[in-house]
Amino acid sequence: MHRYRSHTCGELRASDVGTDVRLSGWLHNRRDLGGILFIDLRDHYGLVQLVARPGTPANEALSHLTKESVVRVDGKVSARGADNVNPDLPTGEIEIEVTGVEVLGSSAQPPFTINTDDGVNEERRLEYRFLDLRRERMHRNIMLRTAVIAAIRQKMTALGFNEMATPILTAASPEGARDFLVPSRLNPGKFYALPQAPQQFKQLLMIAGFDRYFQIAPCFRDEDARADRSPGEFYQLDVEMSFVEQEDVFRPVERLMTELFEEFGGGRHVTSPFPRIPFREAMLKYGSDKPDLRARLELVDITDVFEGSEFKAFAGRHVRALPVPAVQDQPRRFFDQLGEYAVEQGAKGLAWVRVGDDGALSGPIAKFLTGENVEALTERLGLKPGHAVFFGAGEFDEVSKIMGAVRVEAARRSGHFEEDVFRFCWIVDFPMYEKDPETGRIDFSHNPFSMPQGGLEALGTQDPLDVLGWQYDIVCNGVELSSGAIRNHRPDIMFKAFEIAGYDRETVEREFSGMLRAFQYGAPPHGGIAPGVDRIVMLLADEPNIRETIAFPLNQNAQDLLMGAPAEVEEARLKELHIGLYQGPAKPTPYKPTK
Amino acid sequence: MHRYRSHTCGELRASDVGTDVRLSGWLHNRRDLGGILFIDLRDHYGLVQLVARPGTPANEALSHLTKESVVRVDGKVSARGADNVNPDLPTGEIEIEVTGVEVLGSSAQPPFTINTDDGVNEERRLEYRFLDLRRERMHRNIMLRTAVIAAIRQKMTALGFNEMATPILTAASPEGARDFLVPSRLNPGKFYALPQAPQQFKQLLMIAGFDRYFQIAPCFRDEDARADRSPGEFYQLDVEMSFVEQEDVFRPVERLMTELFEEFGGGRHVTSPFPRIPFREAMLKYGSDKPDLRARLELVDITDVFEGSEFKAFAGRHVRALPVPAVQDQPRRFFDQLGEYAVEQGAKGLAWVRVGDDGALSGPIAKFLTGENVEALTERLGLKPGHAVFFGAGEFDEVSKIMGAVRVEAARRSGHFEEDVFRFCWIVDFPMYEKDPETGRIDFSHNPFSMPQGGLEALGTQDPLDVLGWQYDIVCNGVELSSGAIRNHRPDIMFKAFEIAGYDRETVEREFSGMLRAFQYGAPPHGGIAPGVDRIVMLLADEPNIRETIAFPLNQNAQDLLMGAPAEVEEARLKELHIGLYQGPAKPTPYKPTK
Repeated sequence: MHRYRSHTCGELRASDVGTDVRLSGWLHNRRDLGGILFIDLRDHYGLVQLVARPGTPANEALSHLTKESVVRVDGKVSARGADNVNPDLPTGEIEIEVTGVEVLGSSAQPPFTINTDDGVNEERRLEYRFLDLRRERMHRNIMLRTAVIAAIRQKMTALGFNEMATPILTAASPEGARDFLVPSRLNPGKFYALPQAPQQFKQLLMIAGFDRYFQIAPCFRDEDARADRSPGEFYQLDVEMSFVEQEDVFRPVERLMTELFEEFGGGRHVTSPFPRIPFREAMLKYGSDKPDLRARLELVDITDVFEGSEFKAFAGRHVRALPVPAVQDQPRRFFDQLGEYAVEQGAKGLAWVRVGDDGALSGPIAKFLTGENVEALTERLGLKPGHAVFFGAGEFDEVSKIMGAVRVEAARRSGHFEEDVFRFCWIVDFPMYEKDPETGRIDFSHNPFSMPQGGLEALGTQDPLDVLGWQYDIVCNGVELSSGAIRNHRPDIMFKAFEIAGYDRETVEREFSGMLRAFQYGAPPHGGIAPGVDRIVMLLADEPNIRETIAFPLNQNAQDLLMGAPAEVEEARLKELHIGLYQGPAKPTPYKPTK
Repeated sequence: MHRYRSHTCGELRASDVGTDVRLSGWLHNRRDLGGILFIDLRDHYGLVQLVARPGTPANEALSHLTKESVVRVDGKVSARGADNVNPDLPTGEIEIEVTGVEVLGSSAQPPFTINTDDGVNEERRLEYRFLDLRRERMHRNIMLRTAVIAAIRQKMTALGFNEMATPILTAASPEGARDFLVPSRLNPGKFYALPQAPQQFKQLLMIAGFDRYFQIAPCFRDEDARADRSPGEFYQLDVEMSFVEQEDVFRPVERLMTELFEEFGGGRHVTSPFPRIPFREAMLKYGSDKPDLRARLELVDITDVFEGSEFKAFAGRHVRALPVPAVQDQPRRFFDQLGEYAVEQGAKGLAWVRVGDDGALSGPIAKFLTGENVEALTERLGLKPGHAVFFGAGEFDEVSKIMGAVRVEAARRSGHFEEDVFRFCWIVDFPMYEKDPETGRIDFSHNPFSMPQGGLEALGTQDPLDVLGWQYDIVCNGVELSSGAIRNHRPDIMFKAFEIAGYDRETVEREFSGMLRAFQYGAPPHGGIAPGVDRIVMLLADEPNIRETIAFPLNQNAQDLLMGAPAEVEEARLKELHIGLYQGPAKPTPYKPTK
């Protein structure tokens, strides 16, 4: 028999009754019923019940052990009496009559309980992560993460993509966040940067001719913590393809996401194909470029209805309406609470009307509406008895933000919100440029390296504010999983695009020399995307905090409490790296090579 | 039709003749035969021949393009005449009559040729890696690497292992090499270390109850470059298992390696099962713990034969013999050259005898051998006519090293070396301790964290120099792919093991507090291994230099010539990280927290 186990703790069934077995695992729980010990033994694969009769050496050995000790037990599988069958446990029909025990690793008293959630705080959990990970929820989350990432890899490979690792010790990239820096011992006074994303390398792989690339890529940003972003490092499914247009990128990604969320979403349905929603339309209808499409309500722009109105609150402003059907049974409280919610979002208040059984409008602003207004609203919003309409008025961006939030909240409170579904969409047609409201200058609105729709000609002939980019976001249930773009692979179009944003040729050449040089030797059209793996797992695991899906995350202060990182370092080590600690407000020593 | 291609450049066959197609790719080569242009168009998937007739716009467009430009062509598939079929090319039966051309990305004159090997130096290749990767050999190597790693992942998953990523921003580990350090912005004066290996994390995963872990793990060592190690970062197949003995680790790894090398070794045979060779036996028989078993010769320890001998060169020394069969036709030069080779390895010379047709010994030292010597050698070495014997004498280690090298060289030169085979072996039973030859003190010979064979009892009762560890290496064709071990998971055994090597309890507790703490809460017996992925790919690709198997390696000076890393950093950025550059020999500013 194997030194440690003939079976795992999860696999024994009624059909194994009578078999002599050897099991190893952790002492999960112990009950003493009149001297008979009932023990739950736990390993990676499951739980099984052990029975140790009074007066046996096994009983003696097991009665003194601390929970979470590791033991090997020998015994025979026996059937549980009908009354004792546990239908919630795959091994619930059997138990093990223990005949021998060996302690493989005894345990001190754990700082928190493993077999129940005792509400211990997160810092303590991270300090003893090796125990926290034994808990059922964390074990399940980490295994989900493992399965999801393995499935991504298999699906991407099946779709013809090739995984390639890009360097981790590399150069600073213009991604906008802070880089982590690594001093070079061999190159005094110089530093590597950890990649914020392998953006430039994946484009170089396309230029090198590797047609379809992906990578579960570690990325590093020296930012402060957020619920949906781990401080320090995170992983993205980095993807790039050559000889593609936007829809060619959407196709495999949409297929991957559909399969992934169907497979690992715990039965939640995925609505596929994903709608393509132009950015402008998303802002108008959902007040957001990250619309939560589970909310089955849409905003309607009714600015024109009140253009010459005498109703001062709306006249001359941007006005958005949110029609909500079937609220005839909602009490006044429903309207008041939504109003309070709108105020929390920054609104001054929330105007509304409701449509009575007779079709007449009532509510705080009903009296300000002319017959013409009512007629226009009825037609435009398809108003029927039982409907309500909420209104927002003001600047476009402000109204969008507030009414976008009200849309989701109203849907949640009025039964117009779908639970148990993953609603994806693509947001497309982002504008290339925007006007800085303060300076009035034209600047890139999103990614300067995207290909403008219409190419060089569009840049030369259209109003810059009308130029759209081949740029897109993928959004699921209101969470942005990734931006992506068809890249600008032509130096001539790049110089023109930057010129419009006020960058001269010399600046562009200086700042982006590496990529520009590569583009000069035969670059294919290419594009890609990079969905966040941590966010995908978070959505699938239905966890509100990304750290619950990572085995060893840094805490909010970017510290590893388990291993004690970051830590102080001996002066000699720093000297070897040609650096010293910077003290207070004085200027650091200027750089002078040591050799 | 798709904007860029209806087919890839590698997929058209005779059965496609007559089809209208659109292809995109790089202008790989161009020949002009009486005005007719024959062009090889290349993409990731293959090469295809284009034909552009004189006087057509296509001919005009293609005649002026620089090689390596990217074009889209429209055309019709036609059969090549029987004389023009290229049997070396999968598309060799067809060509494309080009009717339309669009230049997608023009190329400047490349700094070296892509379609032939022009012997350009490595620095230049790395500087223009995006072009170098277009070359057939590099493209093949990188795709091999991709396929090998994808296969490792699928096979490990099928074997029941779960891939888990461990932190990259972490604490310094006691692995013996220099760490790369990363200053923390949020924790002034403190530094992360990049992991030299995820050793501690994988053990913590076992303690956390995840039964079988693997990871294609990025590892970082601030070391100088070697042919088989990339400076900076490298990848290992990191593996750990719980509730296992040594053979339980060998089984899946042996299966993985066999399948992998059969599948990707280009037809080279894998000899499985892998022999288990005790360390001491390996040193005696092969003079090395990394034996190249393709050399079908073995050393024999004949120290005792010459114990009381009057032959001063051998008497009282450690003597190793290398019998080589079937060298009757080797000229004197064979012996002389092997002697020179031995001298290059550090020997003073190489004694030898050969066995004539009549069974009589001849050669430089034949006259020093007594009848008794000859009788003993004949029996011990199984000497027959046509055999030769080479001798080494001296200290054990020195003789092992020299005769180990001579063994392989003699095998190569005498036809006793198997080509086209992967000969793996496990080296087992490494001693736990060794005596420092200078101080006479007992120290760990390899890994202090391995479980000693016989456990606590062996440590308490045996001569430390006799204690073996559950520690092993996996070797292929003379290349060590990995060390591994069954870990010491019991604090009591660990304290005792360190005590023998002269470390007191306090030191052990201070140095290894993190792991010791984890071991106190129920640690399972566990063990693992971590074969080098880069070395595996190097063996499979039959490349002598690891950089030939990595898309974007650092050069020998740990520089990325393409992206310009490492680079100087603005003073303000360093200040934000609480460091300054250290100037010359003066002491760096002592650390004082800024807040």
